[in-house]
Amino acid sequence: MFFASDNTGPVHPQIMDRVIAANADYAMPYGKDPIMDEVRAGIRATFESPDAVVYLVATGTAANALALATYCQPWQTIFCSEVAHIQEDECNAPEFYTGAAKLTVIPTADKMLPDALAAAIEPRQPDDIHSAKRGPVSISQVTERGSVYTLEELRALTAVAKSYDLPVHLDGARFANAMMALGCTPAEMTWKSGVDVVSFGGTKNGCMGVEAVVLFDPKKAWEFELRRKRGAHLFSKHRFLSAQMAGYLQDDLWMKTAKQANDNAAHLTDGLRKAGAEFLHDPHANMIFANFPRAIHHKLHAAGAKYYLWGGSLEGPDDEMVGARMVCDWSISSAQIDEFLSHF
Amino acid sequence: MFFASDNTGPVHPQIMDRVIAANADYAMPYGKDPIMDEVRAGIRATFESPDAVVYLVATGTAANALALATYCQPWQTIFCSEVAHIQEDECNAPEFYTGAAKLTVIPTADKMLPDALAAAIEPRQPDDIHSAKRGPVSISQVTERGSVYTLEELRALTAVAKSYDLPVHLDGARFANAMMALGCTPAEMTWKSGVDVVSFGGTKNGCMGVEAVVLFDPKKAWEFELRRKRGAHLFSKHRFLSAQMAGYLQDDLWMKTAKQANDNAAHLTDGLRKAGAEFLHDPHANMIFANFPRAIHHKLHAAGAKYYLWGGSLEGPDDEMVGARMVCDWSISSAQIDEFLSHF
Amino acid sequence: MFFASDNTGPVHPQIMDRVIAANADYAMPYGKDPIMDEVRAGIRATFESPDAVVYLVATGTAANALALATYCQPWQTIFCSEVAHIQEDECNAPEFYTGAAKLTVIPTADKMLPDALAAAIEPRQPDDIHSAKRGPVSISQVTERGSVYTLEELRALTAVAKSYDLPVHLDGARFANAMMALGCTPAEMTWKSGVDVVSFGGTKNGCMGVEAVVLFDPKKAWEFELRRKRGAHLFSKHRFLSAQMAGYLQDDLWMKTAKQANDNAAHLTDGLRKAGAEFLHDPHANMIFANFPRAIHHKLHAAGAKYYLWGGSLEGPDDEMVGARMVCDWSISSAQIDEFLSHF
Amino acid sequence: MFFASDNTGPVHPQIMDRVIAANADYAMPYGKDPIMDEVRAGIRATFESPDAVVYLVATGTAANALALATYCQPWQTIFCSEVAHIQEDECNAPEFYTGAAKLTVIPTADKMLPDALAAAIEPRQPDDIHSAKRGPVSISQVTERGSVYTLEELRALTAVAKSYDLPVHLDGARFANAMMALGCTPAEMTWKSGVDVVSFGGTKNGCMGVEAVVLFDPKKAWEFELRRKRGAHLFSKHRFLSAQMAGYLQDDLWMKTAKQANDNAAHLTDGLRKAGAEFLHDPHANMIFANFPRAIHHKLHAAGAKYYLWGGSLEGPDDEMVGARMVCDWSISSAQIDEFLSHF
Repeated sequence: MFFASDNTGPVHPQIMDRVIAANADYAMPYGKDPIMDEVRAGIRATFESPDAVVYLVATGTAANALALATYCQPWQTIFCSEVAHIQEDECNAPEFYTGAAKLTVIPTADKMLPDALAAAIEPRQPDDIHSAKRGPVSISQVTERGSVYTLEELRALTAVAKSYDLPVHLDGARFANAMMALGCTPAEMTWKSGVDVVSFGGTKNGCMGVEAVVLFDPKKAWEFELRRKRGAHLFSKHRFLSAQMAGYLQDDLWMKTAKQANDNAAHLTDGLRKAGAEFLHDPHANMIFANFPRAIHHKLHAAGAKYYLWGGSLEGPDDEMVGARMVCDWSISSAQIDEFLSHF
Repeated sequence: MFFASDNTGPVHPQIMDRVIAANADYAMPYGKDPIMDEVRAGIRATFESPDAVVYLVATGTAANALALATYCQPWQTIFCSEVAHIQEDECNAPEFYTGAAKLTVIPTADKMLPDALAAAIEPRQPDDIHSAKRGPVSISQVTERGSVYTLEELRALTAVAKSYDLPVHLDGARFANAMMALGCTPAEMTWKSGVDVVSFGGTKNGCMGVEAVVLFDPKKAWEFELRRKRGAHLFSKHRFLSAQMAGYLQDDLWMKTAKQANDNAAHLTDGLRKAGAEFLHDPHANMIFANFPRAIHHKLHAAGAKYYLWGGSLEGPDDEMVGARMVCDWSISSAQIDEFLSHF
Repeated sequence: MFFASDNTGPVHPQIMDRVIAANADYAMPYGKDPIMDEVRAGIRATFESPDAVVYLVATGTAANALALATYCQPWQTIFCSEVAHIQEDECNAPEFYTGAAKLTVIPTADKMLPDALAAAIEPRQPDDIHSAKRGPVSISQVTERGSVYTLEELRALTAVAKSYDLPVHLDGARFANAMMALGCTPAEMTWKSGVDVVSFGGTKNGCMGVEAVVLFDPKKAWEFELRRKRGAHLFSKHRFLSAQMAGYLQDDLWMKTAKQANDNAAHLTDGLRKAGAEFLHDPHANMIFANFPRAIHHKLHAAGAKYYLWGGSLEGPDDEMVGARMVCDWSISSAQIDEFLSHF
Repeated sequence: MFFASDNTGPVHPQIMDRVIAANADYAMPYGKDPIMDEVRAGIRATFESPDAVVYLVATGTAANALALATYCQPWQTIFCSEVAHIQEDECNAPEFYTGAAKLTVIPTADKMLPDALAAAIEPRQPDDIHSAKRGPVSISQVTERGSVYTLEELRALTAVAKSYDLPVHLDGARFANAMMALGCTPAEMTWKSGVDVVSFGGTKNGCMGVEAVVLFDPKKAWEFELRRKRGAHLFSKHRFLSAQMAGYLQDDLWMKTAKQANDNAAHLTDGLRKAGAEFLHDPHANMIFANFPRAIHHKLHAAGAKYYLWGGSLEGPDDEMVGARMVCDWSISSAQIDEFLSHF
């Protein structure tokens, strides 16, 4: 019963097969491998963007920090939700990679709202030498609380950014989960909605450790390459990153694993709802935040279930409500979910 | 005939098998996987250093830059050979990770000499506020030109560093090749010879993409961890780094692959010598720098041989001597070498 | 009628006289001038801290950024008010000097409250590798809105910091104004209340351009010196910084100019109150934030009065209330104030 | 007898008078003072460059580091002499301000030679992702060893830079001394010779602490301003920087003080030559490097003369030759020089 994160599960066999297949013979290093050509073409087709530039890195933090650095000057500020991964969980990597830019956080319990975003941008006057200057807007889709922006919501945010001429970054660590929840296309969730650069996650959705950074402005290509190398994120045996991403894209595997993960979460959500759990956020994709009695937490822990407590502890009265964060990946079985629910 | 680099060949099957085996079931992320416990114990035993702290990253540049940053203040200068990888091939990653420290290069065509090192350190007076302050000494073993420092040479360098109270970093991207060439132990080539922190390479010697940073001072552990995370080099599905390193250490595979690579290079060196090639550096491990006539380069290129020209081009008179850099990894077969030599 | 800022007025004659006197003959550069000895002794006596280390820089931003950098690791976060100068008015200098640390802002309209500070510190768990780590707390005294923390309030904040073992920085750009408002000693407002390092402002209170950074831990001395030099803030003709600070300290001039500035502000506050202005913050020192009708703004502007509008504009109905920020320095005359008030 | 440096002498009275005059009344802060308008117009006229952008900072290191940062990406390398001030005497400020760029040093005992410069630039291939990329060339005029590049020499260096499309920075801490030695115009020594940005020194030539950064490309203006502010080098009471520079430019004072300094050095050089001193470098401006017997050093020290020993010490046989660095500023009198020489 592994609901701790979508980074604790196994690599999908189709992806592992591509890694194994890539191990035959010799290949040129540093991204010159032929599999990368397949990946580049695949991403461009997927995003309906024939000029997009595509680079692979191994961690989501690298994808975000490098993408943002390519769009942010050191005297600017990034705008993001106060619960964004880049603000809360990257140990100052965005500050480091941007050369010491500021992060300005938009107060919110979950989604960033257009008015709050505008209220944060507006006071940073572009001709005032004292204030940090306006920089990119970063949006997490799926959010850190498991919500998915509708296309309308996304466009309302990018419209605010565009009204100030600011670039937009999409942190898509769970890009696939969001897209499957919306039933839209990759293009609709990115450049057709005003997104300039996207961290297209693979690791949480069946890969071993690979994320694509997709930049819709080809003029940014060389700078991104230099930043990736300088950040020590250029792999010599790059073919093993390429192979993962190639396997991920092949026959739309990434959509299938994401749908499975979302379906798993829906199954779990249903069960929790029937069992009387209180949801802290409306679950849109594959993450669930819910309160239930401490007694049940005790039973789940005793049974070996893995998930994070959310704002509470195991110490206290049995009938008190205690929060849980539960994440489903593609590999969770119905049986696991049912076993989990059986303790309610 | 792939002699371009030791990063173009395949992953050793024993390592790939461990990666595949690691894919069963669930594992806690971010280095909390049980395989990492095996790796940590293995490295400590290998280095006869029960308190060593051990961290894995995926690239050699990350290993070097993070190791150096942990031992260097931003107002200091690293001392290294003018042909060191950290100076020539890391696109300012050491400067970036140290927070803008300086690299002071020791003039040399290959090995750094103790007198030249001392001559570079001495003028940086510790009480002079204007000059960059003295920082770590970084030594590449194998060097970038294929030489291996003897233990005496290594100790002469670390003695200079120690006489100024400076820490010593060993760039061991080809650690195994050097050690097998010397016939010494890992401890002898590191802490017993005055090395404080080592980049213990795996990628060039049969792994997919993994390097261990081994710090002999356990007090540096937490800072290193924070720097790794901040640099976006902490893997969520860390078990796949652990598995590579576990397979690499298992039954001393790393020594066997290095010996094979060195033997392959000796085979090639013999043949080249017999064919009248001029050696630019005395080959000690698995890298060979040699001049031979352009006509032979043409034949090799026509036959599809892969290697780097070294300070020359294919344009010009047939009988002119043109340099080549040839690197052997463990996977090169005798047949490939013989085929290569057949063109001389 | 210059109420725009306390950095628009002239240098006090006693300070200018010291600058002129310092111009005789020769003096060793880079802080080795004998006047600096006088300054160091003067500051130590003033702060009742015989071991304090004292350095001079020319701007308040340099004082703050260097002081904070000396107490903050790049993977940490500084805690400060959301309206702090370091957050709002230093164009990312704190991020730059700390090597890309984060600023975590405490929501408040003016003073930082202990509970809110604790609520911001608490979630940054020291053993969580993902989150930015806890770093220094920075308190502005006078605040950016003209308030002065009582010693009790100050100690409540430093007690929170100390309960987490965090260092405390005091941004004392208007240190003298705050101290005179409280009627306490420099020691009481700093180390006796838990402050570790203070930016002791001179520029806004009669100097030409000089701030002292006072560190109560002598072990930080050399690091601070190196950071100052690396930041290009070490003056060659340092005696002209020393001379300013010597003149500022001489016969407690700094207390007299601050008292005069505060008295001027009290005079203006009285007049504004009688004229029916609404105060946005209770004026404690030499800064006043107040609303009054736009018609009066028009009259003041026509008369050449200088001050900043605060959250409003000159466009609109005459009787609408519009905010103003007015700052008094020591040099403003009663006549100027009365003339200003005559337009109400 | 103060020959230690040209930063130990007094401020020229004409400059001090402008500082005193600037102290009347109120002035807008942060470079909005009207004296800055005079300075800007004066520099533009002086340099025959009506579109030049002009900013003031207080230290030479700030001028150099900010000028270079405006022309250098973090993944590039600056090219400079191995004895350049930016390499030897700025405690990594250029690395810091550029966001961790590399400095590549051109081996030389004094002047940088065009062939050596080209040899350093050439190997940094622009399409090689591993190497630091080519960045600005920085030339010191006067050099750190007291030499002055002729216009032909200067143009030969900038021609190398331009052949690689690289920008050129001139470190003119002693700009005036060089120009007076050459008898050329400011334009001839800068943009007419291929210089893009110049640190135009004032501090060593009669000012209190001011340097102008002059950028001949107006598109760089806003970035430079932001970098200056972020570096904490924007003065609130900026009028006192403006006043110094205004006094420095007024009636070509800067040329007169530089000529006086050069004449003083010529006087001293003549005397030293007659006394049999050996010159380490041919003195072109106001710095002299010479060897003379230790016995004379003893006499000079006993008489209170101030200068730096250069590569030797006072310990040893009386007749051994020991080096000295002697610098003359405008304020040294003939009598002081004659007294100094009387000890030979």
